[in-house]
Amino acid sequence: MKKTTRVLAALVCCTLLGSAQAEGPFRNPDNKNLKDPSEGTYPVPYKMPVAAEITDALHRIRAYMDKATPTRVVNRKTGAPITDFKTPVADAVFEEAAGDYGILVYEMGVVHSGLLLAAQATGDKSFTAMTQRHLQFFGDKLPYFRAQEQKFHLERANSFSRFLDPRALDDAGSMCAALMRARAAKIGPDLSQMIATCSDWVANKQFRLADGTMARKRPQAVSLWGDDMYMSIPALAEMGRMTGQRKYYDDAVNNVLNMSKYLFNPELGIYTHGWHAHVPDAPRFYWSRANGWAVLAMSDLLDVLPKDHPGYDKVLNQLRANLKGIAERQSGTGLWHQMIDRNDSYLETSASAMFVYAIAHAINQGWISPTVYGSVAQAGWAGLSSKINAQGQVEGTCVGTTLAGDQVYYYHRPTSVHALHGYGPMLMAGAEMLRLIKNPNVNIEYKVRTYHYQPKGAGQTDYREHH
Amino acid sequence: MKKTTRVLAALVCCTLLGSAQAEGPFRNPDNKNLKDPSEGTYPVPYKMPVAAEITDALHRIRAYMDKATPTRVVNRKTGAPITDFKTPVADAVFEEAAGDYGILVYEMGVVHSGLLLAAQATGDKSFTAMTQRHLQFFGDKLPYFRAQEQKFHLERANSFSRFLDPRALDDAGSMCAALMRARAAKIGPDLSQMIATCSDWVANKQFRLADGTMARKRPQAVSLWGDDMYMSIPALAEMGRMTGQRKYYDDAVNNVLNMSKYLFNPELGIYTHGWHAHVPDAPRFYWSRANGWAVLAMSDLLDVLPKDHPGYDKVLNQLRANLKGIAERQSGTGLWHQMIDRNDSYLETSASAMFVYAIAHAINQGWISPTVYGSVAQAGWAGLSSKINAQGQVEGTCVGTTLAGDQVYYYHRPTSVHALHGYGPMLMAGAEMLRLIKNPNVNIEYKVRTYHYQPKGAGQTDYREHH
Amino acid sequence: MKKTTRVLAALVCCTLLGSAQAEGPFRNPDNKNLKDPSEGTYPVPYKMPVAAEITDALHRIRAYMDKATPTRVVNRKTGAPITDFKTPVADAVFEEAAGDYGILVYEMGVVHSGLLLAAQATGDKSFTAMTQRHLQFFGDKLPYFRAQEQKFHLERANSFSRFLDPRALDDAGSMCAALMRARAAKIGPDLSQMIATCSDWVANKQFRLADGTMARKRPQAVSLWGDDMYMSIPALAEMGRMTGQRKYYDDAVNNVLNMSKYLFNPELGIYTHGWHAHVPDAPRFYWSRANGWAVLAMSDLLDVLPKDHPGYDKVLNQLRANLKGIAERQSGTGLWHQMIDRNDSYLETSASAMFVYAIAHAINQGWISPTVYGSVAQAGWAGLSSKINAQGQVEGTCVGTTLAGDQVYYYHRPTSVHALHGYGPMLMAGAEMLRLIKNPNVNIEYKVRTYHYQPKGAGQTDYREHH
Repeated sequence: MKKTTRVLAALVCCTLLGSAQAEGPFRNPDNKNLKDPSEGTYPVPYKMPVAAEITDALHRIRAYMDKATPTRVVNRKTGAPITDFKTPVADAVFEEAAGDYGILVYEMGVVHSGLLLAAQATGDKSFTAMTQRHLQFFGDKLPYFRAQEQKFHLERANSFSRFLDPRALDDAGSMCAALMRARAAKIGPDLSQMIATCSDWVANKQFRLADGTMARKRPQAVSLWGDDMYMSIPALAEMGRMTGQRKYYDDAVNNVLNMSKYLFNPELGIYTHGWHAHVPDAPRFYWSRANGWAVLAMSDLLDVLPKDHPGYDKVLNQLRANLKGIAERQSGTGLWHQMIDRNDSYLETSASAMFVYAIAHAINQGWISPTVYGSVAQAGWAGLSSKINAQGQVEGTCVGTTLAGDQVYYYHRPTSVHALHGYGPMLMAGAEMLRLIKNPNVNIEYKVRTYHYQPKGAGQTDYREHH
Repeated sequence: MKKTTRVLAALVCCTLLGSAQAEGPFRNPDNKNLKDPSEGTYPVPYKMPVAAEITDALHRIRAYMDKATPTRVVNRKTGAPITDFKTPVADAVFEEAAGDYGILVYEMGVVHSGLLLAAQATGDKSFTAMTQRHLQFFGDKLPYFRAQEQKFHLERANSFSRFLDPRALDDAGSMCAALMRARAAKIGPDLSQMIATCSDWVANKQFRLADGTMARKRPQAVSLWGDDMYMSIPALAEMGRMTGQRKYYDDAVNNVLNMSKYLFNPELGIYTHGWHAHVPDAPRFYWSRANGWAVLAMSDLLDVLPKDHPGYDKVLNQLRANLKGIAERQSGTGLWHQMIDRNDSYLETSASAMFVYAIAHAINQGWISPTVYGSVAQAGWAGLSSKINAQGQVEGTCVGTTLAGDQVYYYHRPTSVHALHGYGPMLMAGAEMLRLIKNPNVNIEYKVRTYHYQPKGAGQTDYREHH
Repeated sequence: MKKTTRVLAALVCCTLLGSAQAEGPFRNPDNKNLKDPSEGTYPVPYKMPVAAEITDALHRIRAYMDKATPTRVVNRKTGAPITDFKTPVADAVFEEAAGDYGILVYEMGVVHSGLLLAAQATGDKSFTAMTQRHLQFFGDKLPYFRAQEQKFHLERANSFSRFLDPRALDDAGSMCAALMRARAAKIGPDLSQMIATCSDWVANKQFRLADGTMARKRPQAVSLWGDDMYMSIPALAEMGRMTGQRKYYDDAVNNVLNMSKYLFNPELGIYTHGWHAHVPDAPRFYWSRANGWAVLAMSDLLDVLPKDHPGYDKVLNQLRANLKGIAERQSGTGLWHQMIDRNDSYLETSASAMFVYAIAHAINQGWISPTVYGSVAQAGWAGLSSKINAQGQVEGTCVGTTLAGDQVYYYHRPTSVHALHGYGPMLMAGAEMLRLIKNPNVNIEYKVRTYHYQPKGAGQTDYREHH
């Protein structure tokens, strides 16, 4: 150990003093001067994003997800398909995916939302075929599993338990929003019953603080989770859109503002992962994915919130403040670190994808300027694109992570291609990048080896003077 | 060099983009599911601390210290023991320890304080045998060295000079506090004379600012050192306890508040190492051990300060502010860096031990919540436990360090098992962790792969909902 | 890749937990005790700077620059020297330097300013021989190239275009300041015409904001560049000195204060690289060299600005605020990182040299205290000295860099010994370090293994007490 340490120390020393720049394998192909001494190399494919490449990556992910998510009912002991759906049996379960991607979990709600966006951005309906298939399966099989439950009382062992007996926002919110979006897009059958169940949980049954903030009884008796912004707000927003009832919008806005009051650090522009009512001033942990859920939630809300709602500008300003803090913490690879404020924690894919989506979407919606933010999104996509492998798997995503109290835990959460959290955000990021590079209101200049995003009509630039 | 640099650059690049998570050698043994794909590996033994293991580690340190600190008088030239204590000779000195651990230095004061705590926490009196032996030696030999000094005027060359002629807080404060604690615990002989000498220096003779703040004439004409919070405040606090005189408490409180006014950065929640009167706005250096001395000093004061003292809440709030800043800077290994705000400086043991002690102690005393802070202390102990070797040596402690003006100096201070600064704090940290895991007011839940510290009676948690 | 990643992960893990201190190849030669266990080793030559070594390094750079910058007119196609300067030919150009160091570029203006300072600091006139040669060439050949332009209208292809038809601050400001400084030092011929051209551009023709701030039309329609502080303010300051007209000082002061209003982050004490009028709250990029230009500009202005100018104290306070922010971000090698707030970006030489110059100069001018800042400058020089190779080349300088919008670009700008940006600042830093170590108002104590810079007359220090 001593010897190893000395060798390493010498290495560190060399690195500190030598030209420690990472010489990446990628050279920017947009620079046609192959002898340009002022062109660097990059650890990621730094270049103008190419629509065909993004579309291809989206299809790879879609195809992988499609293949990896069977919609069959089988006997959990024998694996044999169930064919008789008249008489429920206790051992009937959803067939398990090879990669353990549950078809009713909250992460799959994000996947459906991502597929809907990919279909919109590309005009290619094949992106929603999987959503159609899953939703049809839900519609077909709900009565069977409800009957199973009435007969056998399996509780959490019932494959459909999240919608028969939701118990947490994780069960309800994300998939609920996805179902309402699919309904609006006319994908899948009528799932009013499922929507009624999950929306009732989110709107009426979830444990809350007295001020209406969504809360949990874990890990402390009264805890807030940043993740719950996404697990509740998009569903509330979609309920507002679906029903036209303002109370849902009010609740969504209230949750953005309250969560931000408890969790947001305005000096840094980022959210801490969580908060406990009995220790409001505890040390904070700036987990990237919690920030990802936050920006997705605010962005989803603004997509449907009427502009004349009194909370509109407050939510918009909060999103802007968070996006600025996020953009300022982007790493030199375009990705973001597991702990967004810690550059010695690993680079994490799912949060990075959420950030790229949210930034690109905010530009496309006109909420933030393409200037600077466009470059950040593009650089982020350069990093993300290196995380989609040939099979369509998304690499480098932190597995499911609880609200914890120490950095050792957060730093060492494993990453896995089986962490479904990365797939939906990656689909969303790619789809939104397609919109961005085709955005008629944005002019992208490639000048002096980098990319300058300009709002159309913001005046003439002049590179004439440059030698 | 060029080639090495390129190789390194490639490595850096891979590290940046690959799954850069440190795959540590440790798997949490509390997770019995050996196939759990959501369980990570750790660079330190991340697990519920085991009392027997802590106690064993404490004994190893105790035994090592005991063996390494002879209490004999020898001829400094020949090494032969002095046996005649009637007639002083000029060459009589304390026998030197193999590891150069001085028995009268301030660091040894912390060791005694640590041994006293270990005895309390374990109920095992063997922990104070060394303290008993050292103090007996002091009592026995003080007259001899006083006579030597009167005859030969050796000044700093007299082994007992710190107590015959103290000249600095380093000479007096830490050992003085330890002697008074031992006296309160009825360990060792009556050392009133030594206590009178050292307490007189701290209370009355040390150079100070006009407002009473403890100061030094180095490295500038009027400088403050964060270290001096520990070199003075615990001694003043113990004098308050021993004598019942409020003036000592007032002085101690005044020094906490003044030092904090000059040295504490409230935005970051941490102390800069020092301050110079003629350049009050100089660049700051957030040396971890200075923060360690600060939290020990405040904690020691609160242990004895009457709760109705007008400064009590101010000191408590200051300790809380510092502990929050410290907790938020814990590294992904549980340890803290040499410069607490710099994650590319090395991980330093002595400061980390002081922090773990102070956090665990503050929980046990009810000054801060076990929630989050308990997890931080436990993660810190996981890191610390990896720094106690089989011989009972404490590894990774920065050697004695002056108040300097550049990061190059601070970053490159060597570490050594011969740096005594790590031993006392490690004993204190271990002892306090034992108290924490047995604390009847704290409930520690092991759930979803991490540890949740809950105050007893703070309400029911509910993991029922979790899939 | 997987295997490499695992190996790397293991390395990272060891590094995190082992004694991760960089064991550098350098031991401080000022510590004569070769067995001192409290002496570390360093990645840079940490020691009292030696005047002869600095002077030698300055001469190496001077000689390299001199050799690398021909002053000849040649036929751009054949390379043959032009000898007939009566009748202009279209193909006549300045002979190109091997290292592509243009003799009229802004970076060369800094080189001349550095050579002038080196001559002053050493009393050795050989330092200005190259400046004399270049300026004589300019004076001799301006008429020829003007005639060439009138006849052939080559525009940017005319070697003298920057002074025949300046179009940007980059063309005019830095060289203009250098020409006026040389004139004041009576180096070179009368270049009034050139000075008139460039000063007219800076004072009257550059695009500005309505409030007078120097601006550019790139990369956005209205953008500010931190670099332009140096590209305008020193020239304006020298025009003030040369003409005695206060309007130039007013303009210079106004630009310091306005630029700071738009670009300076007072919480961090550093400048963001740039700003765009239509997105004033965009994410910020703290590029070190932009901060270097800022401190050079403010320092140059204060050198000549009358002390009774109403802006004097404001500029001084702004310089102090920036120098504090800079000093607090110095790395453990004495150098600064490419992004001054990002310790995982590479160590960059040109900015580091600007910082060392500005800090040492501010001490020598009495603007800041030698205490702490002197140590920072010395540590910075230790790092810089390792970047001057045997040939007199300056290593590790970031090549020309545009105002960009993403960290991936900034992190991966290549470094090159052909980046002229490092040469002038290195000459300035070395010259100013010579002045610092000879400064009669500064006392440098080498005590307990480091260096303590004390203002003369600030009172007596006392190390007597230290064991």
